Amino acid sequence: MRTPQFLLCVSFFSLFAMAQTPSSLNLMPMPTRVQIGTGQLVVDQSFTAVSTGQKDARLDSGIPRFLDQISRQTGMQLNGQPADASNATFIIRAENAGRKVQELDEDESYTLEITTSRATLTAPNALGALHGLQTFLQLIEPTPAGFAVPAITIQDQPRFPWRGLLIDVSRHFIPIEVLERNLDGMAAVKMNVLHWHLSDDEGFRVESKRFSKLHQSGSEGQYYTQAEIRDFLAYARDRGIRVVPEFDMPGHSRSWLAAYPELASLPGPYRAGRIANADTVMDPTRDQTYKFLDKFIGEMAALFPDAYFHIGGDEVNNKPWDSNPKIQEFIRAHGMKNNRDLQAYFNQRLQKIVSKHGKIMVGWDEVLHPDLPKTVVVESWRGQDSLAQAAKQGYRSLLSYGYYLDLIWPAARHYAVDPMTTTGGAPALTAEEQKRILGGEACMWAEYVTPETIDSRLWPRVAAIAERLWSPQETRDNKSMYRRLDELSWRLRWLGLNHESNYVSMLHRLAGTDDIAALRILADVVEPTKDYTRTEVFPKPPVKRTPLNRLVDAARPESTVARQFAELVDTYVQSDYKDAAAEAQIRASLVKWRDNDANLQPVLDRSFILAEDKPLSQDLAALAAAGLQALDSIDKNQPLPDAWRTEQLAVVDRSMKPRANLLVMVAPPIQRLIEAAAASHQGAKP
Amino acid sequence: MRTPQFLLCVSFFSLFAMAQTPSSLNLMPMPTRVQIGTGQLVVDQSFTAVSTGQKDARLDSGIPRFLDQISRQTGMQLNGQPADASNATFIIRAENAGRKVQELDEDESYTLEITTSRATLTAPNALGALHGLQTFLQLIEPTPAGFAVPAITIQDQPRFPWRGLLIDVSRHFIPIEVLERNLDGMAAVKMNVLHWHLSDDEGFRVESKRFSKLHQSGSEGQYYTQAEIRDFLAYARDRGIRVVPEFDMPGHSRSWLAAYPELASLPGPYRAGRIANADTVMDPTRDQTYKFLDKFIGEMAALFPDAYFHIGGDEVNNKPWDSNPKIQEFIRAHGMKNNRDLQAYFNQRLQKIVSKHGKIMVGWDEVLHPDLPKTVVVESWRGQDSLAQAAKQGYRSLLSYGYYLDLIWPAARHYAVDPMTTTGGAPALTAEEQKRILGGEACMWAEYVTPETIDSRLWPRVAAIAERLWSPQETRDNKSMYRRLDELSWRLRWLGLNHESNYVSMLHRLAGTDDIAALRILADVVEPTKDYTRTEVFPKPPVKRTPLNRLVDAARPESTVARQFAELVDTYVQSDYKDAAAEAQIRASLVKWRDNDANLQPVLDRSFILAEDKPLSQDLAALAAAGLQALDSIDKNQPLPDAWRTEQLAVVDRSMKPRANLLVMVAPPIQRLIEAAAASHQGAKP
Repeated sequence: MRTPQFLLCVSFFSLFAMAQTPSSLNLMPMPTRVQIGTGQLVVDQSFTAVSTGQKDARLDSGIPRFLDQISRQTGMQLNGQPADASNATFIIRAENAGRKVQELDEDESYTLEITTSRATLTAPNALGALHGLQTFLQLIEPTPAGFAVPAITIQDQPRFPWRGLLIDVSRHFIPIEVLERNLDGMAAVKMNVLHWHLSDDEGFRVESKRFSKLHQSGSEGQYYTQAEIRDFLAYARDRGIRVVPEFDMPGHSRSWLAAYPELASLPGPYRAGRIANADTVMDPTRDQTYKFLDKFIGEMAALFPDAYFHIGGDEVNNKPWDSNPKIQEFIRAHGMKNNRDLQAYFNQRLQKIVSKHGKIMVGWDEVLHPDLPKTVVVESWRGQDSLAQAAKQGYRSLLSYGYYLDLIWPAARHYAVDPMTTTGGAPALTAEEQKRILGGEACMWAEYVTPETIDSRLWPRVAAIAERLWSPQETRDNKSMYRRLDELSWRLRWLGLNHESNYVSMLHRLAGTDDIAALRILADVVEPTKDYTRTEVFPKPPVKRTPLNRLVDAARPESTVARQFAELVDTYVQSDYKDAAAEAQIRASLVKWRDNDANLQPVLDRSFILAEDKPLSQDLAALAAAGLQALDSIDKNQPLPDAWRTEQLAVVDRSMKPRANLLVMVAPPIQRLIEAAAASHQGAKP
Repeated sequence: MRTPQFLLCVSFFSLFAMAQTPSSLNLMPMPTRVQIGTGQLVVDQSFTAVSTGQKDARLDSGIPRFLDQISRQTGMQLNGQPADASNATFIIRAENAGRKVQELDEDESYTLEITTSRATLTAPNALGALHGLQTFLQLIEPTPAGFAVPAITIQDQPRFPWRGLLIDVSRHFIPIEVLERNLDGMAAVKMNVLHWHLSDDEGFRVESKRFSKLHQSGSEGQYYTQAEIRDFLAYARDRGIRVVPEFDMPGHSRSWLAAYPELASLPGPYRAGRIANADTVMDPTRDQTYKFLDKFIGEMAALFPDAYFHIGGDEVNNKPWDSNPKIQEFIRAHGMKNNRDLQAYFNQRLQKIVSKHGKIMVGWDEVLHPDLPKTVVVESWRGQDSLAQAAKQGYRSLLSYGYYLDLIWPAARHYAVDPMTTTGGAPALTAEEQKRILGGEACMWAEYVTPETIDSRLWPRVAAIAERLWSPQETRDNKSMYRRLDELSWRLRWLGLNHESNYVSMLHRLAGTDDIAALRILADVVEPTKDYTRTEVFPKPPVKRTPLNRLVDAARPESTVARQFAELVDTYVQSDYKDAAAEAQIRASLVKWRDNDANLQPVLDRSFILAEDKPLSQDLAALAAAGLQALDSIDKNQPLPDAWRTEQLAVVDRSMKPRANLLVMVAPPIQRLIEAAAASHQGAKP
């Protein structure tokens, strides 16, 4: 909550809209204020939409794109535009011109009013109008009377002005067309910043005309040309998305040093690519370094129009600085205490260069140092504390900690992370200080994603973070979030996102056959291991890149089947084991899982790539058998002995430890059944 | 069989390879000769492939595309090419240069030899080599030792030189990118001709620089520019596919007449688009018509390099000619007997024009007339008789009758149609005459396909026709065909074909929700109505195009579930009702179908677009209930009364008549159970 006016809206929302909003609306992110009317507006082939306000190229392309999207969603070709604009079904009116380059402080609000005969969308500028079009698209449903949107009034505005997604294209190169469909996904959930992590140890991904060795030696041939980048930036602008480039320095820079070892703190040679060598830090003591960066940043500042420029600044390895006597001498000579001061010195000089080229510097939280000017934006990734600390010290800040999609957390865990309720004391900040918290960024680090799998690692989970950053703070019901997330997920198919269809393709590849029924039963209940526990980061020579084609790569980050099974067990337990319908459903799932291993083992035997998953399948069967025994025991009120419990819990325990980098996610709810069956044995109420 | 040499191959194949070919090979079309060796060649990231023979641009692009395809199929990025070509895993050698423009009589054979250490592919030219690469791709499987291809020797060559697919882009415009992915599919099954049906009443789809009104007035803005066409032709050539354009005349030409009514037999005005008006025939009596066609065909002959040029010639409506006195006077004045002679006159003059521009004329079987020169190729669509008749009369001919994919036949029905065993007497032809039968063409007429649905109407069924035209005549086991078709189907995903993924998307759209389980159970057992029985061809104003977004459009042309259920019932009946495992599976399916209607009705109630499917769901439940009663009756040997039988058969009857343009395909096997249960009542052995 950033202004009293906004507080008023939220209160109004809380009292009024929350009560009236039918849970059937599939909106995500949930708008600020929703007032449902009576009836609906049919969207048939005569549907038309026109812009009557301020002319804006983003609406000139955005409205036809919106109409195309209606055609895709509904499978109807529309008849075409009306001769007379005033006869259009949908009038879109942006009041003022947008800025030439999209800016952080532009008003993104909009008002959407739909009656049974027409719809109107008004917004201060094209950005709000684009958001309103996305809301309209989400409202379209098949009804008994045709495709339609409900009569409704929506007043909407974002809670935070910076709602970003970082995509790392260094660890695995992600082609432009893959990024573009994901920009479409971002626009669908009203995210407005792509933080493009363009360089890291493993690869330098931008063509530099001034320093062409950067992309030539640093990318293994996988980089974006400047022409491609310009087209892509236009694509993003058309969708109301700013693109903030990141060139990570002075650490995470091996790919630069492969091309220009003279920038390094230690003599090379260096090479880019996925190898285990983190001793790659630029030398901040040499003027040559800054001369190089001045030219390079000048070139990139001209290429990327956004006002913000991310210089990384994270995880500087001390070893190269420690082991270079000249650098240590420089530290002493300049009255610095340590390497940290040296990095601050580097950042200060870097900030001057960035500023000279007309940009505002953004850095990871390591850059936070009293010597830096307050214009710098700090992005908190190591914890939440720095977010509020930075704001308190007068810096603007962004939250990424808690939003790392590569950690494979469930959506609800990300959803619970709120920039304003961080442990670092954001709630205690003054209103002025709170305003410095600009928002946050979901982060898709790409050690374990490829162009094939990235959609499935982003979607639908990133939409929960998008909602956290757009919707009122009070919007936090997990059940509603998951219901809407499920509905959003299949609609994202219309944008070409393949998070669902690739799952099936990858299972076919793993099994090498058309019949993937048994493999899918296993795949549906496992999830990749969490946090930084995945193994096999580095390929073994002569393999350049470790294939990401295993079950862990196909498996969804969050198992819907396991989530729903856990809910079912919860219902059953809450009913004091009396809900017969729930029990029947639980039993049916358990029988399916128990019997699956016999069908699946021949498939696992045939394919080298599935061999590692055999124990998972066996344990799923064992867990399910235990669950069935537990149900029988509960039904008959014949408690099972402690020895049985101990034995079964060992399987549960094993199932929730990574094997083949996977976890069997139905183990915890089955554990509840096992405990219940054994607890009743001890005379306690289960 | 076209030469004694070829006969020898076939015999060899019959005696040797048929016995030795493991049924596990997922090859489609099945090669001419296959000899399985011992062991396998592992395809890992060190896999490399080089061309060492005649340089050919199609291999320069085809080999990298082949390697990319391996990466897609396996999910592995390959390390890259060897410094020394002789160290490559896979040596590809095309002996001779191909023709500048791909020709009908080019040798398409290849020999593929795979040992445990290396693979070699030799072919007379690049065309055979491209086919051999496709065979290699189909051989890759996950094995216990990694992705691998078996040690094998394959000698392969097509049975017919013309293996075509017609795609109609007039009735519904199909964008280039959709055509391109389908060309990739064609190449995968070794089809070598795209017959591009570019004009018809509904639309004229080619930019004409000489007669720009053709595409401007005749296409509603949906046409290919000449630049797009040239790129597309290059794309096709790269894949060993000839492109034969068709401009249908003198009938099926309303879109031309919209632009140039002076060509018509009756005064206009005319307009293109999907309206009910077939009285649109060119006037063959005016010299102006031929002057126009001379210029037009000259332009198109330069644009399309293929030696063949299809002029249509089908379904000329007599009415415009009959009702124009000048035309009837012309017929009399020139000593013709009737309109048919007038069309022959038109074709003769047209043939001279086509020939003058260096092309060989192809026409539908109506063009067959003794006055035409023997160079003309006749395409049989109205029946098979004309195929052999044409050959007997000295014309070369193509079979399309029996290969119309828009009739929604099962793959096996197309598969059974063989150009050499047609009713018209092909078997009785001399070897010389038989050689005139060039092959055939699958036809995808586009009244009921859109860019969204076309993949699902083509794939995988068209592969059965591709095999018929490539593989030895003896390759005709339906069971093997279906097994391999199923395996091919999911592999086609790697080419971007969406016949499977769009099914799911369309069901979501119909249901308007994430949970499509119940809808899918119904959709899995229905098929679109067959032949020309689909209703609602023409849109009602003001709708320009009837949306093709109903269950009939989502439903697969051939229900795998229904086919497998019928096989199961067959097994059960063959076992004299004793196969308990089959019975258990039958019962499980019946229970699922019986109970599905209750879950599905709320979904059907919510969506206007599904309302028409309610009776289908109810009847599926009724059929399943009857099937279960029948099983119980058979199990208990308690026959059911005639009245019951009569009642149930009425449901069967209804289910196999089109409703909502759909058929419930499990009705016939359930009918067998009903008959059995009632027959036993009459004391007869069921």
